[in-house]
Amino acid sequence: MRVLPDEIAVVNVGLPMFAEAVRAQGGTVTHVDWRPPAGGDPDAVRALTRLYSSPTVDTANAEVLRRLDTGVPFLTGVRRADEVVPGVEGRMLLHCGPAITWEHVADPLRRSMRAATVAEGWAADVGEADRLLADGAVRLEPANHHDMVVPMASAIGPSAPVLVVDLTPDDGSEPVRAFAPINQGPGEVPWFGRDTDAAIARLRLLRDVVGPALSAVLERSGPLDILAVAAQGIAMGDDLHMRTQAATNLLVRSWVGHVAALPDDVRGPFADFLAGNHLFFLTPAMGAAKALTLWASRVPGSSIVTSMARNGTTFGIRLPGSDRWYTTAAPPVGEALYYSGLGPDDAAPDIGDSAVLELVGLGGPAAANSPAVAAFLGGSMADAAAATDAFRRICVGSSSRFTLPAAGFAGTPVGVDLRKVVATGVTPKVNTGILAASSGQGQVGAGVATAPLECFVEALHALAGT
Amino acid sequence: MRVLPDEIAVVNVGLPMFAEAVRAQGGTVTHVDWRPPAGGDPDAVRALTRLYSSPTVDTANAEVLRRLDTGVPFLTGVRRADEVVPGVEGRMLLHCGPAITWEHVADPLRRSMRAATVAEGWAADVGEADRLLADGAVRLEPANHHDMVVPMASAIGPSAPVLVVDLTPDDGSEPVRAFAPINQGPGEVPWFGRDTDAAIARLRLLRDVVGPALSAVLERSGPLDILAVAAQGIAMGDDLHMRTQAATNLLVRSWVGHVAALPDDVRGPFADFLAGNHLFFLTPAMGAAKALTLWASRVPGSSIVTSMARNGTTFGIRLPGSDRWYTTAAPPVGEALYYSGLGPDDAAPDIGDSAVLELVGLGGPAAANSPAVAAFLGGSMADAAAATDAFRRICVGSSSRFTLPAAGFAGTPVGVDLRKVVATGVTPKVNTGILAASSGQGQVGAGVATAPLECFVEALHALAGT
Repeated sequence: MRVLPDEIAVVNVGLPMFAEAVRAQGGTVTHVDWRPPAGGDPDAVRALTRLYSSPTVDTANAEVLRRLDTGVPFLTGVRRADEVVPGVEGRMLLHCGPAITWEHVADPLRRSMRAATVAEGWAADVGEADRLLADGAVRLEPANHHDMVVPMASAIGPSAPVLVVDLTPDDGSEPVRAFAPINQGPGEVPWFGRDTDAAIARLRLLRDVVGPALSAVLERSGPLDILAVAAQGIAMGDDLHMRTQAATNLLVRSWVGHVAALPDDVRGPFADFLAGNHLFFLTPAMGAAKALTLWASRVPGSSIVTSMARNGTTFGIRLPGSDRWYTTAAPPVGEALYYSGLGPDDAAPDIGDSAVLELVGLGGPAAANSPAVAAFLGGSMADAAAATDAFRRICVGSSSRFTLPAAGFAGTPVGVDLRKVVATGVTPKVNTGILAASSGQGQVGAGVATAPLECFVEALHALAGT
Repeated sequence: MRVLPDEIAVVNVGLPMFAEAVRAQGGTVTHVDWRPPAGGDPDAVRALTRLYSSPTVDTANAEVLRRLDTGVPFLTGVRRADEVVPGVEGRMLLHCGPAITWEHVADPLRRSMRAATVAEGWAADVGEADRLLADGAVRLEPANHHDMVVPMASAIGPSAPVLVVDLTPDDGSEPVRAFAPINQGPGEVPWFGRDTDAAIARLRLLRDVVGPALSAVLERSGPLDILAVAAQGIAMGDDLHMRTQAATNLLVRSWVGHVAALPDDVRGPFADFLAGNHLFFLTPAMGAAKALTLWASRVPGSSIVTSMARNGTTFGIRLPGSDRWYTTAAPPVGEALYYSGLGPDDAAPDIGDSAVLELVGLGGPAAANSPAVAAFLGGSMADAAAATDAFRRICVGSSSRFTLPAAGFAGTPVGVDLRKVVATGVTPKVNTGILAASSGQGQVGAGVATAPLECFVEALHALAGT
């Protein structure tokens, strides 16, 4: 025989309305904030169940995390792309994001491609460049297919100088080499979707002055341990994506003696270029992140994302051990601040390969110690901490080299796990610039792009075989 | 007729043992952590009572705080000391701290004076320099008496290059001009108490190369708003005393184009000097602090300290409106980290004019956002925050330009009030280097010097007329 107890207390899991109903009747209730994994989607739950019960995924993830956290990429030199980047030859442009055909290329990237086509000498002006590109006379290839990552609306021609980033795996396997362009700096520049004469001139300055000068500096300084500088930058308030001021300045001070030793013809313009470019360190950091993810992507069977890129039209991710992209439409950039008089209607969708930084513990994962990023996310350091915490929910580990003083010197979250993304519905948020949709005026603001969930779900099913 | 209440609760103020006695008997007690002002010293309490009830002190303090917080000092040029510093002529050295005679000069400062005497060409070697100094053939003057501040064991000769710092008061009064030397950098250098050939050579390098080069850079760049850079440095983890890395690097990046334009004979050595000197910004910051305190010291009747300096033998402070020093023996540097194999027995007492930084919201008041300083104070950011909070207890206001992201963007404490120091017994703590007591080996560690209370009490009585 059962007897009801004198007092009943309620534990409510999930929808809060039931807890409220108990409270309204004077009952005692403890509410547990719980949601079904993957929003309750039975197919996704099945895939998650399979992947979470597979020890091989966890083993692979542990090795991927180890590589992302411990690899040491060095900036070893600067070379013309066609001298050093595998598969670059003839009339070819390497662009941001997944593969795309000209008719689907977004306006800022079209402009950047036109500027590069003129700078390469294939066309006399942007009108002729446009016709060549529309005719398919210039081959378009994702930079990511050539071990390179490029920021915003970059398009890189064969004569462009590229940073060479080398990583020696500690397991004796084949050396890893990755590439990134030299950051073009602020103003009228192709990576911001400009195709003016000044934008074309910037590409020539990079090729004729900045690239050779930087190459000479590196010959004098020797290889640069990129992430050692990045770690110092983070302690000084960089997130190393939206802000690279501290890391850039550290580098410039350590290099100033080498700059002074450059030949007369390049010294002044190169120094002025450095002085005016606080985002100089962005592309070395991206190249280092690409080297880490290239090494990590040799591990099959992992659920950790090792490519994340956007071309202004599509957003895509890839998993280790496979060249397959999982793509969806590029999202708009939200939580945005626009330049005066501009707004969401003027903005192109999210663009660029720089989201690779968020995969290795930089950018959003490092927001918690960045006052500059906090200013974007709501103004308080608590807002910045929340951005880091969001990555902590979807990452498999913490960095042992990127530590956050403002978070008790905790390591930044590293290794975005597809399973956690789908289970929680929390996707990576990327701090990024915003380019003009079609006016050709370049950057119109900056904000936070939230990765779309769909391609993570698709990748989950592919990995689970469901 | 009176009746005792049924229940009695106790509020205990002061000594905790009474509260414990009540608790031991089962009583309810609220303990108030209170101590008598000035440790209960009746003379000091009388002086405090007089000064706290005087509206003229508060009025003067408000104006001093306004000047310290709003003055805008510019670095306007670099000149030989004897061309520009008032009263510098003949065989004279300007040294750190209050006035002192040769027989009382501490070993590190003696060595620095010898090195300067040789670099000036007054002696052929340090032996001859020592005899000249002992004979009184070189006049010794506190830098502070010539509107200058010098770090650690500096001694500045007439031919030394000095930073010229100009401040235009917003009240139309006479312009303020202050001076500071160029930071000598790390290694075998006189400001660390070295008198080797290399140390003497560094003084000549400053005079013959660094000074003229820096002058040329400033001519190209125009006047530098020193504290605008300092404010950025603080947001990037500098305290601007123990660490000036971020501010130095900001400056070097902004100047790299001007460095590249220097003539061949000075460009390389000057650039190498900048590349190796992350404390370069220390002396511009000190010069700016001196300009602020010079302007503030024109306000009579204030209880805010406007000079605080040490020469390795005596520690001294001054108040606005008076040239009188209140001095006591220089304290040892506590909470110290020593280089391997060295300890307190190897250490000279606290030395240098850099404590002027702590009077304007830099150094200790800015510790809360500095991971590098935290590493010194115990390791956690909470330790760094405690250092800032200690200054908040003895300061009259907060900076409107130096804000601390790690403290919710609160301003750093500004304006050390003698009254608060004596009332609480909390004296300024200064983050500083430690020099060898007598071995001549230079820096032996770093730590925190706690200002001695005695001279604050003496100044309090002088101000109160008690």
